[in-house]
Amino acid sequence: MTLFGLEESVIVGLARGVHPGGDESERDAPADVFARAAWTGIAEPGDGVAGLLVGSLGASVALTAVLETWTPERLAVTVRESGVAGEELESELEQGLQRWRPRLSSAEVIHSLQQAARVSARLLLPSDPLWPASLDDLGLHAPIALWWRGDPAAFHALPHAVALVGARAATGYGEHVAMEAAAGLVDRGFAIVSGAAYGIDGMAHRAALASEGITLAFLAGGVDRHYPTGHDALISRIAEVGAVVSELPCGAAPTKWRFLQRNRLIAAAGAATVVVEAGWRSGSLNTAGHAAALGRPLGAVPGPVTSPASAGCHRLIREFDAVCVTTAAEMAELAGEGVWALDRIEAEGAAGGTDSRTSEEIRVLDALSRRSPRPVPDIARRAGMSTAAVLGALGALDLDGVVSERETGWVSIGRGT
Amino acid sequence: MTLFGLEESVIVGLARGVHPGGDESERDAPADVFARAAWTGIAEPGDGVAGLLVGSLGASVALTAVLETWTPERLAVTVRESGVAGEELESELEQGLQRWRPRLSSAEVIHSLQQAARVSARLLLPSDPLWPASLDDLGLHAPIALWWRGDPAAFHALPHAVALVGARAATGYGEHVAMEAAAGLVDRGFAIVSGAAYGIDGMAHRAALASEGITLAFLAGGVDRHYPTGHDALISRIAEVGAVVSELPCGAAPTKWRFLQRNRLIAAAGAATVVVEAGWRSGSLNTAGHAAALGRPLGAVPGPVTSPASAGCHRLIREFDAVCVTTAAEMAELAGEGVWALDRIEAEGAAGGTDSRTSEEIRVLDALSRRSPRPVPDIARRAGMSTAAVLGALGALDLDGVVSERETGWVSIGRGT
Repeated sequence: MTLFGLEESVIVGLARGVHPGGDESERDAPADVFARAAWTGIAEPGDGVAGLLVGSLGASVALTAVLETWTPERLAVTVRESGVAGEELESELEQGLQRWRPRLSSAEVIHSLQQAARVSARLLLPSDPLWPASLDDLGLHAPIALWWRGDPAAFHALPHAVALVGARAATGYGEHVAMEAAAGLVDRGFAIVSGAAYGIDGMAHRAALASEGITLAFLAGGVDRHYPTGHDALISRIAEVGAVVSELPCGAAPTKWRFLQRNRLIAAAGAATVVVEAGWRSGSLNTAGHAAALGRPLGAVPGPVTSPASAGCHRLIREFDAVCVTTAAEMAELAGEGVWALDRIEAEGAAGGTDSRTSEEIRVLDALSRRSPRPVPDIARRAGMSTAAVLGALGALDLDGVVSERETGWVSIGRGT
Repeated sequence: MTLFGLEESVIVGLARGVHPGGDESERDAPADVFARAAWTGIAEPGDGVAGLLVGSLGASVALTAVLETWTPERLAVTVRESGVAGEELESELEQGLQRWRPRLSSAEVIHSLQQAARVSARLLLPSDPLWPASLDDLGLHAPIALWWRGDPAAFHALPHAVALVGARAATGYGEHVAMEAAAGLVDRGFAIVSGAAYGIDGMAHRAALASEGITLAFLAGGVDRHYPTGHDALISRIAEVGAVVSELPCGAAPTKWRFLQRNRLIAAAGAATVVVEAGWRSGSLNTAGHAAALGRPLGAVPGPVTSPASAGCHRLIREFDAVCVTTAAEMAELAGEGVWALDRIEAEGAAGGTDSRTSEEIRVLDALSRRSPRPVPDIARRAGMSTAAVLGALGALDLDGVVSERETGWVSIGRGT
């Protein structure tokens, strides 16, 4: 067993560091643990082709195939042999290989595993009893593995968890409602899931902690990077008594794309999602869109119609059939019954905050700097995209005047980064 | 042609006073005008048996039948001959006769007609081109006639009117929203219908007047009685440039029952009903229930969940599928499209403010005084009910401890009247 040319003993050591085996977890072969850990750094969150490949071949065979530069045709044949059908399979795998290969680096994998061991971050695999079964509803877009710090009990609470999300720019009203909601839900035996952001997220976590409840924070970067930095102490506290979770390896930076993908985990993890306060184009409408697309109960808290900070909540109630929830009791009812399902919503429609950019454009913008010009292969590696896709996105962004080519590569312009 | 033993010339004179004929209205025979005017004082608003009788026999034949003390059997035969079926017809007519006969008084009819002529109140009949066709959706419970003061143009505006209703105990927030809504709707060419009460109603009328829009006030008593008295100047102003409307004759006092029945007219008259601010048990939920039962678009304005004054609006959105409306534009959309219909609502469920009392108990309580004991026949006449029904209601109310029998009759106790 070798991967990246590493000896078996090295792989076992690294895997044990982040996935310490009791009897239960010994069944996960160290090579599989190591390979899934590597995949969390190679594929961007929500990469359905990576999910397909890992699901059909197993993580280590899939990784070997990428490492050994199999042709897309050979890879497609092997995937088809495992029973998967798909007309576009060759072309999807070819694009996948172009996304993943620029990121293949044993040094980075080893570094992130060592960093994980250093901060006591652990790796959770889908085969683990702790794995949140609710995430499997994401299908091919489910995480390949989760990194986490905290108390394992937090995962057991997820089937009775409510996701409380909302605007970073919350008002006093919104923060008050978030606090009352979190405390009231904890009193009723629910855990609180959120994203550790400023505003509503932070207040929901804090109130859950103050009520001695269980709370989980899903981060858009590595669990060793406490973002936002102003919530360093809060996230540390959640990692002590609850859980801090990410599908990205240690060291990974949060990007706009990763925030949007992280939102799907928040929506999928809990039994219901409640948007406490959100402006007309708040990013939390994206979380709401994921919840609706998954058929999860979705609630929104109304507020004064004179407050722009509640306009997104009213929009969810008006346009997306979100249930109007005004008390913790009504939120508990929403989560407890879970009979509500929404078919007609299109996740696209609720994907506020992404403006009119395509996914690839967002990811390329994330990978650019305003100061340091970056060559296309570097951008491709950072964005987890093929060079062809990067060039296409750069062309569109160039027309919009938000990127510019310098002698040594591309920079972003006109953004407030 | 005689009614109440009055000469034809007297009847023609009285009818012309309140229903001045142009060519259009000359087709209404004076006896029919007079009889419908009399019926507005004999039957309580919403009396479906009176509606059936007047609809099938015509107002003057129906009145003659009551005056000449036809037996219920004879009346039922005549009604059946006009094509109406109904198993309970005899018993319903018998109870109707018992309700109406205590109120037959030529002196009262003449007095209310003279008072109407004095204050320039006019009578509007269903055959009149001005008659609001929307009220016909009330079926047998439609008004037999309407009394009104104001500008005939106001009635032409009703197909493009929005009813803005809400709590008397409105907050500054609710009044602000009512003002913005009324002004914005007027700007979009809508008329404003409301009930002239304190709080939301008054603010909606005032803002419509300030925007030089058309506004109509539906009253629970006679159009000569400006209730509440604190809105005397406002109602006078509405009667100058808009219209003040009631289905009760001049001199009639507003009662709780009449407020509830008046609400059905507000809900039926406009193209949509919007509840601006309402507590959990606000009487405006009753108006909303009527709108829903009629299939009229129903909107509710959300507010802070921390404000009890908005709890009724949130309840309408949560439980009765009211559309969440936050701007005048959204209210206009609600009224303009009118595609929304609600079947599952039960008017009963939304009939807040009636507590657990039956209709008859409410009407008997309305007819009682806290100070002056009233004998049962007097109560029956005031309530427009049969003595048997009054005795039944008094029995139930007595058990609840809210009425008490004195030597000379019954009084109400423990109410804040």
